[in-house]
Amino acid sequence: MTNQTDITAALAHHIIHSEPNREAIEAARDGVTDFISTALPIAQGAIADSGLVPLKQVFSGTDSLTRSLILGYSGHVLDFDDYHPAFRGHPSTVILPALFALAAEDSSVTEETFLTAYVIGVEAAGRIGLACGPRHYSLGYHNTATLGAIAAAAAAARLAGASVKQTQTILGLAATQAAGLRAQFGSAVKPLHAGLSARAGLTALKLGLAGFEGNTQQVIDAFLAAHGDQQHQPELLVENWGAPWRMLSPGLEFKRYPTCGGTHSAAEAAFALREQWHKHNGADADLADAIEHITVTFPPGGDVAPFIRNATNGVEARFSLEYVIAAALIEGELKLAHFSEAPVETTISALANRVIRRADETAPPDELDPEARFHEVTLHLRNGSTLIQRTTRQETSARPTDLHAKLRQTIGSLTHLDSNQIADRCALRQEGDLRYLMGLLF
Amino acid sequence: MTNQTDITAALAHHIIHSEPNREAIEAARDGVTDFISTALPIAQGAIADSGLVPLKQVFSGTDSLTRSLILGYSGHVLDFDDYHPAFRGHPSTVILPALFALAAEDSSVTEETFLTAYVIGVEAAGRIGLACGPRHYSLGYHNTATLGAIAAAAAAARLAGASVKQTQTILGLAATQAAGLRAQFGSAVKPLHAGLSARAGLTALKLGLAGFEGNTQQVIDAFLAAHGDQQHQPELLVENWGAPWRMLSPGLEFKRYPTCGGTHSAAEAAFALREQWHKHNGADADLADAIEHITVTFPPGGDVAPFIRNATNGVEARFSLEYVIAAALIEGELKLAHFSEAPVETTISALANRVIRRADETAPPDELDPEARFHEVTLHLRNGSTLIQRTTRQETSARPTDLHAKLRQTIGSLTHLDSNQIADRCALRQEGDLRYLMGLLF
Repeated sequence: MTNQTDITAALAHHIIHSEPNREAIEAARDGVTDFISTALPIAQGAIADSGLVPLKQVFSGTDSLTRSLILGYSGHVLDFDDYHPAFRGHPSTVILPALFALAAEDSSVTEETFLTAYVIGVEAAGRIGLACGPRHYSLGYHNTATLGAIAAAAAAARLAGASVKQTQTILGLAATQAAGLRAQFGSAVKPLHAGLSARAGLTALKLGLAGFEGNTQQVIDAFLAAHGDQQHQPELLVENWGAPWRMLSPGLEFKRYPTCGGTHSAAEAAFALREQWHKHNGADADLADAIEHITVTFPPGGDVAPFIRNATNGVEARFSLEYVIAAALIEGELKLAHFSEAPVETTISALANRVIRRADETAPPDELDPEARFHEVTLHLRNGSTLIQRTTRQETSARPTDLHAKLRQTIGSLTHLDSNQIADRCALRQEGDLRYLMGLLF
Repeated sequence: MTNQTDITAALAHHIIHSEPNREAIEAARDGVTDFISTALPIAQGAIADSGLVPLKQVFSGTDSLTRSLILGYSGHVLDFDDYHPAFRGHPSTVILPALFALAAEDSSVTEETFLTAYVIGVEAAGRIGLACGPRHYSLGYHNTATLGAIAAAAAAARLAGASVKQTQTILGLAATQAAGLRAQFGSAVKPLHAGLSARAGLTALKLGLAGFEGNTQQVIDAFLAAHGDQQHQPELLVENWGAPWRMLSPGLEFKRYPTCGGTHSAAEAAFALREQWHKHNGADADLADAIEHITVTFPPGGDVAPFIRNATNGVEARFSLEYVIAAALIEGELKLAHFSEAPVETTISALANRVIRRADETAPPDELDPEARFHEVTLHLRNGSTLIQRTTRQETSARPTDLHAKLRQTIGSLTHLDSNQIADRCALRQEGDLRYLMGLLF
């Protein structure tokens, strides 16, 4: 097979030679802001995380590989970082740690080249998600971990100015390291996946640049064949690359709630029901007490990510559809503090125990079209009446997230930091902005 | 699911509490000898390897994680290290680097505990191979890389004296890092896989011991479900553990030739044909010249590992069925020097170009029973006659390998080393033998 027809070579060519447009670069600034808002409170110790201590004990270096690992972990610990539907995972907490770690040791990196590499990384992430197909996630893989390694390598290759040929090697080195199982959801290994994949991508880059020789052809194809369960479509890796840029369409989704993305539509349905009920019963009435039980329905398989039914602490609660619905109904918001390492709130747990999951067998399976997901929450009240609210994933993702408000929320306890200044720096418009952010992170 | 019924917990229990018998410990001594004979010439620079320079440039530390990576790579570079049929891969070059690296930083490790952990690691390797089933390899995974990470973690957990509960976490941390694609066969990334997996197993151990919390249940099950392509059988992980020990049955196979294991029966068939032909035509007659063409037949899919048809250098030639047959016919041996990084020999290449592969469609597919593999080599002579030799994998693997002769061959150019003394130390019978070997390796 010649380079002209090899899909890995074609992908490498796009990674190195394509030029993102201004709109994509602008959108990337929001991605940086969101990443900093989720990673910074962990990196600066504002929110306690018990996994960071043993992780730093085992990985104590300040080399770029170790930095990418720790920062990737830090960005995903709260499970509050961005999501990309074509990737079906969290791209920025894998791509940006690799880029920040690389930039910290290479003074030639500018704000512009950094943002460009980030857009390329997100494009690669979305492309690999599409090409790998829907069965990959269903098999039990954590896309952020598996596909993330390849996306991070793509972004890093662009930032480092690798050649097309080197990038082919680098992509193959990343693909062969791609790993991570969803069975670790609800534990500290989930964010560790992001760190390991950032490091794998950067490892691929460093080996490739150092002249370590790997196979350059059919390596991405082999990855897709092994991981795609016969639903993979390699041609989607390169077809219409950047038209439109995946940074813009479907674009990064910024979480408003510090819980698994698969709970957000259910949370919004619960907020609407809460508002409706209090409107008729007064702001001080006890909604939890009025509820006999709650049902939540969704397409078959639509609850694979938020799989935990009886959460014991806030980390597990992020992945509990029941707990999120109960918290939304009782408090009208999903507080960061409730989804930390502390034990769950007993009042919320009590209501969560009255939530019943039910797959809507008339809806097409979630695996076939996760973008068609909905959550329908029904309150079965003690007075015999019911209140129903159905919210689709599309409605939820279409609502904008106030990134400055999110930044203020997450770094609120870091009183020495000025959220306005950080937000300004995250836009990476001025020379020095990148160094400023790295000074906060490392 | 309770600990009693969880397969990960049951596996962890065996890893920590089972006691290998004396026969298995004795057999392990041969495994150490074989590993040293393949890793030492690379570690000591006696055989040039161009991948080691960039690898050491990127990974320059002397911490145990880095050491396990470099040593795992070194042990597999020649593709001359042992094979285990239940694992369908090379167990020792993943397990032993993790154990040596760990022993080098823990003075409480004795020769006895080292050998015990090694037997446990090989048992785990074989069990995971059986449980994962035949489709894993067919999908394109490199078992040494994927399953190897779990086996290395198992051995390391035993050596470090982890608790059963910690071992559950460690196994889950290893399973979620398991990666490696066969698409890298024929490149330096294949041995890198061994190093990465040794490091992944040791990473899992270190994180687990440091208190990093991962999920402890259904993590191995999830690995098998994702990677087994519906042919996995989790119960085989623990059923009749150690009865017999996989170190003894089927046992480690020690390569006699520095080429892909999938070429060995074909080589032995070629040796037999060569001997037969020279017997009738005299020792000085030119066999290559007498051959019009050669056919080699095997069960369908029996040539997936030695997939390279036109090797350009010795590293590729290791994976070329054609080149190995030609070299065996012309030279009557497979010289280490011919399977190094140098360009291929033109006389051997010329004959290799006259070798035709042919799957025997009447034989059951290799994937269903790789142990039933055979190679039938037919010499079609210019005089119109044919010579046929069929050699089975079972016949090849039943022949013993002279490990001391192999050691003498591989470290021959290291004149400051005494192969008798090293062979003696490899048996790990005396206190200090382990330190002696580590002194040579690190």
